[in-house]
Amino acid sequence: MDITAAYYTGNKTFAIETITARPPGRGEVQIDVAYCGICGTDLHVYLGHMDQRIGNHRVIGHEMSGVISALGEDVTGLAVGQPVVVRPLDHCGHCPACVAGHEHICHNLKFLGLDTDGAFQEKWTVPAHTVHVLPEDLPLAHAALIEPLAVACHDVRRGRVAPGEDVLVIGGGPIGILVAMAARHAGGNVLISEINDNRLTFARGLGFDIANPKDEDVASVINQRTAGKGADVVFEVSGTQPGVDLMTAAAATRGRVVMVAIHATRPQIDLFQFFWREIEMLGARVYEPEDYQQAIALLVGGEIDVGAMITDVHPITGIAAAFSALTSNPNAMKSLIKVNTEIAA
Amino acid sequence: MDITAAYYTGNKTFAIETITARPPGRGEVQIDVAYCGICGTDLHVYLGHMDQRIGNHRVIGHEMSGVISALGEDVTGLAVGQPVVVRPLDHCGHCPACVAGHEHICHNLKFLGLDTDGAFQEKWTVPAHTVHVLPEDLPLAHAALIEPLAVACHDVRRGRVAPGEDVLVIGGGPIGILVAMAARHAGGNVLISEINDNRLTFARGLGFDIANPKDEDVASVINQRTAGKGADVVFEVSGTQPGVDLMTAAAATRGRVVMVAIHATRPQIDLFQFFWREIEMLGARVYEPEDYQQAIALLVGGEIDVGAMITDVHPITGIAAAFSALTSNPNAMKSLIKVNTEIAA
Repeated sequence: MDITAAYYTGNKTFAIETITARPPGRGEVQIDVAYCGICGTDLHVYLGHMDQRIGNHRVIGHEMSGVISALGEDVTGLAVGQPVVVRPLDHCGHCPACVAGHEHICHNLKFLGLDTDGAFQEKWTVPAHTVHVLPEDLPLAHAALIEPLAVACHDVRRGRVAPGEDVLVIGGGPIGILVAMAARHAGGNVLISEINDNRLTFARGLGFDIANPKDEDVASVINQRTAGKGADVVFEVSGTQPGVDLMTAAAATRGRVVMVAIHATRPQIDLFQFFWREIEMLGARVYEPEDYQQAIALLVGGEIDVGAMITDVHPITGIAAAFSALTSNPNAMKSLIKVNTEIAA
Repeated sequence: MDITAAYYTGNKTFAIETITARPPGRGEVQIDVAYCGICGTDLHVYLGHMDQRIGNHRVIGHEMSGVISALGEDVTGLAVGQPVVVRPLDHCGHCPACVAGHEHICHNLKFLGLDTDGAFQEKWTVPAHTVHVLPEDLPLAHAALIEPLAVACHDVRRGRVAPGEDVLVIGGGPIGILVAMAARHAGGNVLISEINDNRLTFARGLGFDIANPKDEDVASVINQRTAGKGADVVFEVSGTQPGVDLMTAAAATRGRVVMVAIHATRPQIDLFQFFWREIEMLGARVYEPEDYQQAIALLVGGEIDVGAMITDVHPITGIAAAFSALTSNPNAMKSLIKVNTEIAA
């Protein structure tokens, strides 16, 4: 069957091509893709930063929702017509990380939609073990936010946020906001530090306390809020040297710092403060199945309003324009591509 | 009663003075000091690095052993004549760290022997809550190693070293060796990375596997030893940029890095690796009462031979020469001062 697929073709370009959908093989599932969000990683691909890894003829996209359209041999527990999302991680099963039970950070991990073709195509074929079934009544546009919300759930779980704890989120972009939402749901008193005024306004609109490091010393703000204690949990989502400086300055004695951001360079860190206050830092990458289950449960229960995150929706033919707009506009939160218009509501 | 005390008097000098011993006040204990080791921190004092904190007329020293000589009012559970060591930490009891139960890293912590006069004097008066009683038959020279061994016990406890785990200790000085001993006792397979040949020989003599980063890529050595897994626990005891580079390169997926060293500058850290392998870093500072209890138990049971660490013993009148020798000789492990010759065996 012919389908439409959007290929990243290098240097800020996409090609919309008509291809034959790949039928599901043994242990695979084919999905009609409803929506697929544009992730920060996708933007890195668009800007050419990841050509060495993915080449210049790759369907990207992984923040998706859809409906099962076909099952391969030996797939059990799933059925055509079920609404689903994909946890886009395919692990090797035999490396030291897999053997230790950390399949999500497998040493040979394939990330679907980067290391394989992804969800910016009308039908996407994936390993059955990556599929999570959704309740029938969950809006598929909202479900496209499950993947980034699962990132946030994983980060908050790594940080062991407990009710009543003081939480600082450094960076108020899409992941920072979702982390703040998940931390608030876990009972944390959340402050978001961000330098972009529009993002600050957006965060305030969601009911969060905010601080702008351009205007005030955020470590002092945290100390004032906490009678000198500092933040029990700090999420470093900025990927910047000032963010790294703030994380050590703001953390409480025995505080936890969750390293969410992907730091491409090696920032300088105040290791003395780690020693002095016995701070703990926890790297956090992607998600485990339970994080997906929690993200789905939070949407189903209406406990987190991811709908508020959706800034705009584009047709697949408008993917190049959507990527262009996102890279020039740091105010947008989440842009979705409506991939298969017959499935997307 | 007149006693001899060694005062640090600034710029690599000590003055041996005859003073009147301070009688113990309410809740205090006076101790005849038998032995007192020279700590790395004491060397920093000697070199003038800490004059702003301690001034230039201070009795330093805290790695001590001794015998109770007098009790102040309201001291219970202790008796004159008991052999003891001191856990030289006096906390405020009301700061956020104390309230949270982390008295050992109190925000207003007084370190006895730095912020107050210390143990390089024949009689030392300290708060009773800092005293740990020793069994009668423990050699007091060995007992002077309980303080640094308690540091090591704290570090190993923070790192949650479990039987069969692969452990890398970066830095083979006195604390690194004691950490290696405690980690081996906890069941770890320990490799020590060190650049000083004499220290490497010393470590090998204690039965440790060793590697010299001048001769080989220690991260590769760890990977070869562990079939590509990496070190489950890394202790950064070097306080150097190469040590910090090695800690991220050598840590396993979900490995723990214990930050033991005091980094005076802000080194660059490979935060990407923290994210990628979900590494955990734990600051570790001084010790808690249970670390002292464990250190004492390890000596009593003969499970760790701290006697092997003692390089040389000097009279208190030779304190200046002992400090001078240590600062010019990076091969020495632990130098002790025999403080009160009537008590020291």
